[in-house]
Amino acid sequence: MSTHRIAVIAGDGIGKEVMPEGLRVLRAAAARFGLQLEFTTFAWANCDYYREHGQMMPADWFDQLKGFDAIYFGAVGWPDAVPDHISLWGSLIKFRREFDQYVNLRPVRLMPGVPCPLAGKKPGDIDFYVVRENTEGEYSAVGGRLFEHTERELVLQEAVFTRKGVDRILQFAFELARSRPKKHLTSATKSNGIAISMPYWDERVKAMAAHYPDVRWDQYHVDILAARFVLSPERFDVVVASNLFGDILSDLGPACAGTIGIAPSANLNPERTLPSLFEPVHGSAPDIYGQNIANPVAMVWSGAMMLDFLGKGDARYVQAHDAIMHAIETVLVQGPRTPDMGGTASTTEMGMAIAALL
Amino acid sequence: MSTHRIAVIAGDGIGKEVMPEGLRVLRAAAARFGLQLEFTTFAWANCDYYREHGQMMPADWFDQLKGFDAIYFGAVGWPDAVPDHISLWGSLIKFRREFDQYVNLRPVRLMPGVPCPLAGKKPGDIDFYVVRENTEGEYSAVGGRLFEHTERELVLQEAVFTRKGVDRILQFAFELARSRPKKHLTSATKSNGIAISMPYWDERVKAMAAHYPDVRWDQYHVDILAARFVLSPERFDVVVASNLFGDILSDLGPACAGTIGIAPSANLNPERTLPSLFEPVHGSAPDIYGQNIANPVAMVWSGAMMLDFLGKGDARYVQAHDAIMHAIETVLVQGPRTPDMGGTASTTEMGMAIAALL
Ligand SMILES: CC(C)[C@H](C(=O)O)[C@@H](O)C(=O)O
Ligand SMILES: CC(C)[C@H](C(=O)O)[C@@H](O)C(=O)O
Repeated sequence: MSTHRIAVIAGDGIGKEVMPEGLRVLRAAAARFGLQLEFTTFAWANCDYYREHGQMMPADWFDQLKGFDAIYFGAVGWPDAVPDHISLWGSLIKFRREFDQYVNLRPVRLMPGVPCPLAGKKPGDIDFYVVRENTEGEYSAVGGRLFEHTERELVLQEAVFTRKGVDRILQFAFELARSRPKKHLTSATKSNGIAISMPYWDERVKAMAAHYPDVRWDQYHVDILAARFVLSPERFDVVVASNLFGDILSDLGPACAGTIGIAPSANLNPERTLPSLFEPVHGSAPDIYGQNIANPVAMVWSGAMMLDFLGKGDARYVQAHDAIMHAIETVLVQGPRTPDMGGTASTTEMGMAIAALL
Repeated sequence: MSTHRIAVIAGDGIGKEVMPEGLRVLRAAAARFGLQLEFTTFAWANCDYYREHGQMMPADWFDQLKGFDAIYFGAVGWPDAVPDHISLWGSLIKFRREFDQYVNLRPVRLMPGVPCPLAGKKPGDIDFYVVRENTEGEYSAVGGRLFEHTERELVLQEAVFTRKGVDRILQFAFELARSRPKKHLTSATKSNGIAISMPYWDERVKAMAAHYPDVRWDQYHVDILAARFVLSPERFDVVVASNLFGDILSDLGPACAGTIGIAPSANLNPERTLPSLFEPVHGSAPDIYGQNIANPVAMVWSGAMMLDFLGKGDARYVQAHDAIMHAIETVLVQGPRTPDMGGTASTTEMGMAIAALL
């Protein structure tokens, strides 16, 4: 297998602190399993760049990145300097849309050694995927204001769902469910309240399910589904949801499994026509930045997901993925741990400990 | 104080099972504290009525109800017979909008005797309000389909936020926060993803906060806020949110506090120009209907909220409210309990036990 070219974008805040640990572990895995990974760092797509240039990225960002096999991404956002909708729409959301990374795949797993906020749960009890639509839906800058600065002021906010967009994410989710032992899919909507788009989503689920007679499926309104994540997380296997609902459920799920500090995600272009992007679920966390105490596991785990995707079943990549996961689990159990997990280790110490196990 | 006229609408499913218990307790409280409550039952706003008449309510529903002081409401929805968006838009959502019940007030409280799914929490640790905007926002039937039944099919879904709608719910929430010992308000938005409406909400929060220098406030993206409900529910006091986010957070909150089976809500028209509505947070639960095992506490607690609102500080009403809450707590601790709480009691037995304590 040839060299894989990976674009590295650390972004803002703790993105800059966890990225070196992600790279440290990937380099260790590459050395051990003979993978050819070539990293190229980009100093844009962050709020410092915005302050200097008035935009998050150079005009030719698409051309600069499109030839890479993957983007390894930290976190973007520094709300004191740049409003979040500007920094995110100018970087991450652009990548997801323009590189057509229509699947946001987010494992929710209670890992050994991680204290669980839910009473009486043990590793194995919580182990599912949130499959989030990643390019359309509620995430939208379409709309506007009327009667601005008057008492009659009014805001219209459009959400857009296309058959193509809905069907392809449902298909991915049903395929994933089919590949898993439980073969169970749950769809999240809110069709009793949101009267146009959500009944449409329900209709498409029903149509898609007809092609997967071997997959059991159900659907929940997102409010009660959120409650069930807390009350009976064991019952989920593959949860498919719109951009917004997937966003909420994929923060809530990892919280139920202990911490969002370790949750990874893959923004996939399954056709591989353009680069996919791998990033922690957590954000740039301005409140803890600068202390080198951020938990690097989400970044490292996202790297393992990247290897899995790049390797397409190549044994060395599978081994590298599994070895990283094993190293993560070992360190979660025996330490060192960052403060969010009750330890006193630094980001660097935890990253080095994981790398040392490879 | 004169007679209070209360419209009783049981609705569908377990709404029909918990309503008699709610009424039983209210009647007991009225007898003990000398309240004049007059109940009038309506046999519409349910899916049986829809099957007979092709609509959820008679054409003159507004005129029939507008003179009541309050509506005591069970639950609506029977998705096997009537799609949820039809049954709900034809009843509950109409009430909320046309009676201008713009505040949906939902206490989230860990009660004594209720097993908490979160490890290590005890009564007192979780005690906050979700204040939900109840008339506009994401709950919308505005929008439509294009290119129907083709590959290009496309759905537009509009959300509408008005300055009046946003400001009045924020004002209610800030006033509530000011009245509480912690004086703390949290606003939920998602301004990094939903680029028009949510930054607007953030702006209005900032403007409103200027009038409440004594209230500490913060804002969270709803995804991380959902995670915080699980990881640190102690830190919340008053959480204000849009219609959709309030809906999600007010199912999630009660789940974190043990069960949505006991969570009440008040749909308030604070100006009292039209009736307010009091209902459980839970739905009609077709899966358990017909067994008389539904937990009646949410219905009973909603009744207590109704007395509190109707009484406007009148000592007898305050006493009745407090006595019902005390009776609920006593039964939660010593039983009898319905199966959702680990017991074997029926809905009726639990309701009778609460009423007997009055
Ligand atoms: C039944 C449904 C329309 C309703 C809502 O979403 O508002 C319910 O979930 C609630 O929270 O009262
Ligand atoms: C930063 C933000 C735009 C992003 C999202 O909402 O998609 C994040 O919360 C995530 O889940 O990846």
